Amino acid sequence: MERRTDLALEARELFGEDIKGVKFEESEKEDIKVSRLKITSDKASAKLGKEKGTYVTLEMPPLSDNYKTPDEKLEVIAQEIKHLIPVNGLVMIAGLGNTEITPDALGPKSASKIIATRHIKGEVAKATGLDKLRPVAVVATGVTGKTGIETGEYLYSLIKKIKPNALIAIDALASRRLSRLGCTIQISDTGISPGAGVGNNRTKLSQETLGIPVIGIGVPTVVDASTLALDLFDTEDVRFSEQLKSMVNPNGRQMVVTPKEIDLLINRASELIALAINYALHSDLNLSDLMSLMY
Amino acid sequence: MERRTDLALEARELFGEDIKGVKFEESEKEDIKVSRLKITSDKASAKLGKEKGTYVTLEMPPLSDNYKTPDEKLEVIAQEIKHLIPVNGLVMIAGLGNTEITPDALGPKSASKIIATRHIKGEVAKATGLDKLRPVAVVATGVTGKTGIETGEYLYSLIKKIKPNALIAIDALASRRLSRLGCTIQISDTGISPGAGVGNNRTKLSQETLGIPVIGIGVPTVVDASTLALDLFDTEDVRFSEQLKSMVNPNGRQMVVTPKEIDLLINRASELIALAINYALHSDLNLSDLMSLMY
Amino acid sequence: MERRTDLALEARELFGEDIKGVKFEESEKEDIKVSRLKITSDKASAKLGKEKGTYVTLEMPPLSDNYKTPDEKLEVIAQEIKHLIPVNGLVMIAGLGNTEITPDALGPKSASKIIATRHIKGEVAKATGLDKLRPVAVVATGVTGKTGIETGEYLYSLIKKIKPNALIAIDALASRRLSRLGCTIQISDTGISPGAGVGNNRTKLSQETLGIPVIGIGVPTVVDASTLALDLFDTEDVRFSEQLKSMVNPNGRQMVVTPKEIDLLINRASELIALAINYALHSDLNLSDLMSLMY
Amino acid sequence: MERRTDLALEARELFGEDIKGVKFEESEKEDIKVSRLKITSDKASAKLGKEKGTYVTLEMPPLSDNYKTPDEKLEVIAQEIKHLIPVNGLVMIAGLGNTEITPDALGPKSASKIIATRHIKGEVAKATGLDKLRPVAVVATGVTGKTGIETGEYLYSLIKKIKPNALIAIDALASRRLSRLGCTIQISDTGISPGAGVGNNRTKLSQETLGIPVIGIGVPTVVDASTLALDLFDTEDVRFSEQLKSMVNPNGRQMVVTPKEIDLLINRASELIALAINYALHSDLNLSDLMSLMY
Repeated sequence: MERRTDLALEARELFGEDIKGVKFEESEKEDIKVSRLKITSDKASAKLGKEKGTYVTLEMPPLSDNYKTPDEKLEVIAQEIKHLIPVNGLVMIAGLGNTEITPDALGPKSASKIIATRHIKGEVAKATGLDKLRPVAVVATGVTGKTGIETGEYLYSLIKKIKPNALIAIDALASRRLSRLGCTIQISDTGISPGAGVGNNRTKLSQETLGIPVIGIGVPTVVDASTLALDLFDTEDVRFSEQLKSMVNPNGRQMVVTPKEIDLLINRASELIALAINYALHSDLNLSDLMSLMY
Repeated sequence: MERRTDLALEARELFGEDIKGVKFEESEKEDIKVSRLKITSDKASAKLGKEKGTYVTLEMPPLSDNYKTPDEKLEVIAQEIKHLIPVNGLVMIAGLGNTEITPDALGPKSASKIIATRHIKGEVAKATGLDKLRPVAVVATGVTGKTGIETGEYLYSLIKKIKPNALIAIDALASRRLSRLGCTIQISDTGISPGAGVGNNRTKLSQETLGIPVIGIGVPTVVDASTLALDLFDTEDVRFSEQLKSMVNPNGRQMVVTPKEIDLLINRASELIALAINYALHSDLNLSDLMSLMY
Repeated sequence: MERRTDLALEARELFGEDIKGVKFEESEKEDIKVSRLKITSDKASAKLGKEKGTYVTLEMPPLSDNYKTPDEKLEVIAQEIKHLIPVNGLVMIAGLGNTEITPDALGPKSASKIIATRHIKGEVAKATGLDKLRPVAVVATGVTGKTGIETGEYLYSLIKKIKPNALIAIDALASRRLSRLGCTIQISDTGISPGAGVGNNRTKLSQETLGIPVIGIGVPTVVDASTLALDLFDTEDVRFSEQLKSMVNPNGRQMVVTPKEIDLLINRASELIALAINYALHSDLNLSDLMSLMY
Repeated sequence: MERRTDLALEARELFGEDIKGVKFEESEKEDIKVSRLKITSDKASAKLGKEKGTYVTLEMPPLSDNYKTPDEKLEVIAQEIKHLIPVNGLVMIAGLGNTEITPDALGPKSASKIIATRHIKGEVAKATGLDKLRPVAVVATGVTGKTGIETGEYLYSLIKKIKPNALIAIDALASRRLSRLGCTIQISDTGISPGAGVGNNRTKLSQETLGIPVIGIGVPTVVDASTLALDLFDTEDVRFSEQLKSMVNPNGRQMVVTPKEIDLLINRASELIALAINYALHSDLNLSDLMSLMY
């Protein structure tokens, strides 16, 4: 009944927890609830509306409460990313989304803090040891409405030229549950659909469309007002559902629900994700060296 | 039943349209629906939860649709402001709210575009005619959490020193109706409660507390998620209401509903309000001269 | 003697005004001094240190004085751009430079206000007439230090994919003369060297390297402190020149000279350039329609 | 001969190092060169063009080189601030300058990271121990051109109302030496002249004008182009000096010299100053707790 969620975990909660072709396990590390969901059959994929593959979901306490840079949490997140990327070679990072829309800025904000290293060469690099860092390229694609270029064709062009071994695509997501906003990270090996976080569905970015493994990393930053309304009433009545949707999106203007402190959450989540990716890519560096390269 | 609104118009819609002590009339000018609500008795004031005085509400089409700088609309808004401010003398403008929270940034963003003139003196000013502009002072008070100073004591101090004839306080508001977000302006002669837009009620700014007339100008930028939920169900059941509220504010984290394009709306609304105030204060200047002083 | 300038006009002033293989003519339109410099021989190109081709330089009064959106000036600038771009077909706009360094942000700031249209298709576009707009794509490449990708390879990839008829590259420049900062526009059909404005020379972007005509549009935003010092002394002594350079770049830290109000100038110059490019690309739209699409 | 500097240290270098009424001593701590200059006589004050009192100057390596949050340096800076502020009671912090002019934004940027505590009261504060923090109020006065209010009268009003024991005023400065830009901190007990950093001299903020001790903290962010030119030539010729000045300020437009990476330096310097002030005010908190309150 069109309750939208970009989290595979929530799709499972919605459409049945005992589906054949879905493996699910949970654990807890350092105050983080880690769920591992694996969709193995086409039928399960169709039922959940999610691609086949692995989805790791990390649920943390809200980032707005008594925040400290979470050293141990960082380790947990970085490990999960590390499992999904190739051991060697160039990795490309893409920050998807619109910097001018607060809840959609997670991707570009995170990407802007990733350490780019692919261009570091020559004597100075040798002297400082920077030439030994794993090669990384970073792109902020912008949004199609501002560039005239689909994110898919944008990335495809660059990938064909610089030939990375994998793409990590970071994007803001929409969740169904308010409690997950800003404090949940989904990491998957199934790619990502850019613009999903604010409702503009576009070409899927995946191994199929781009020719290399695509790791999607996302944080839910909004709940659609429609999803909230449908969820509160939990109705099966199609007509009433349509009524509800038009009530919460007056004159077709799309409404979203966010925490009051959304700007702060986006800043903290993007910092955390950038730190985790940097850590996963350069795991021989310690945190202090990493941060001095980032700032 | 705690459906929060900062619009007197909506308080009337909620608590009865035929109250004694409330005058109400509507008209339409240049595609703007203009309502004039006057609360004259203490009883009506208590019932509506709004101070005695006049509230003018201007409802426009959404500022996100095919936007042009709205010359004729501007005239309408400026006229309403002009009616409420003294004919002569120094006017102080205060932009209330937090620049770091998107939907709360309306006040400081508007204030930053008001033309300050109180300090313009001397030969150059005479030569350019700028010395004939009405004296205006502009203040962004910041928020108490960042300054340690209540907005009320902040403004009181400055008013005592520079002695303006009136204060115009600009603030983001919360409304009950999603359809009013970003495209409704409330202008009142009753003062304003800073922080109302994001739920931190503080000392009222009014003639009583500050000693000069206080004109409040506000635009609703959020609907509290609680208000939306209560409104959808329209229940009188206290227990169910409490349940609803905790569902939409999980773990006490306050959730708000905004249009997806809230950043754009804040930019446009603050530009429109600044333009209207500048026009109301310097009505002998034409729009083109005004804009060349603003940018 | 290493007085750096990105303006062909200044190269001519420095290295001799009567060189064979250089045509030069000046005129004046709407308060704008228009110079047209044509380098036709390899020898002249080598002497001036500038590529063969046409350089149009527009010198205006400082954009900080009594600024109004300059309607007539706009027409002059747009005409010069129009002369250099193909009559039909897709045009790609690239904003070069670093958004995080104020005097280098001209390119991305201008690009962010260019109307992208390549993606506009379908029924809605037909209904509003937007489908008749010339196709335009817009890219902000970022800087190599943040992306790990050379601007040249970045643009080459995208051009190969989306096949524009021409590229317009916007960049901040360095001039020799302080008086030209922020109020001079150079438009050339010879391409551009990204990063020139802040001293990081990179691969030239040109027809040769990218396969399509490259129109460079730049505004000088800094004078190198070395250039200023060498110019003040006008010395031929190599040793003294070296001394001067190390005095004004202590410990090798590169120093630049800018107007105090550089932030304001960048804002105004980027707005003017964006407006002129939009106008040149869509010359059947009037200014008011154009601005309503931009903001 | 009008070589402008806001650093007392440089005034001494310029006008004679062996003046009666000036005490001077240097030491070094943690890679920081600490100079202590005391002006004790009116004559020395007039000669150096600086108020009587103590000026501590801290010279560090450039903040752009291999930057790490400098724990030990922080301790040194905080100690110097602590020496000059009262042991107990409310302290008010004022960030002076214009947020919209990069090299002038140091004051407001620093102030925005100071922890305000004056308003923290009640049960929650008690439970978390926050009620035991020293009371601090923070103000960003804006600039007179945008507010119509002189910084002096602005601060005077607030001080009269909230009655702090001391004011710490943070401002961008102009130095004579390029090598000191962005990596030198001057701390003085003699007050400060707002706007000095970008050349708008205003009323002095001092014990005399405000009635409480005023500690000035500043970082040089620009060298006036005039100062640089005069310094390079070291001339006594008045006419030539005037010529030089008009050459480097064409048409009266004021030019300044800054490091290319000025945006980065302002960010780092303001972070360092905020951290040092917070540390000086709450020296019983450790660095990690402090930072979790700041971000």
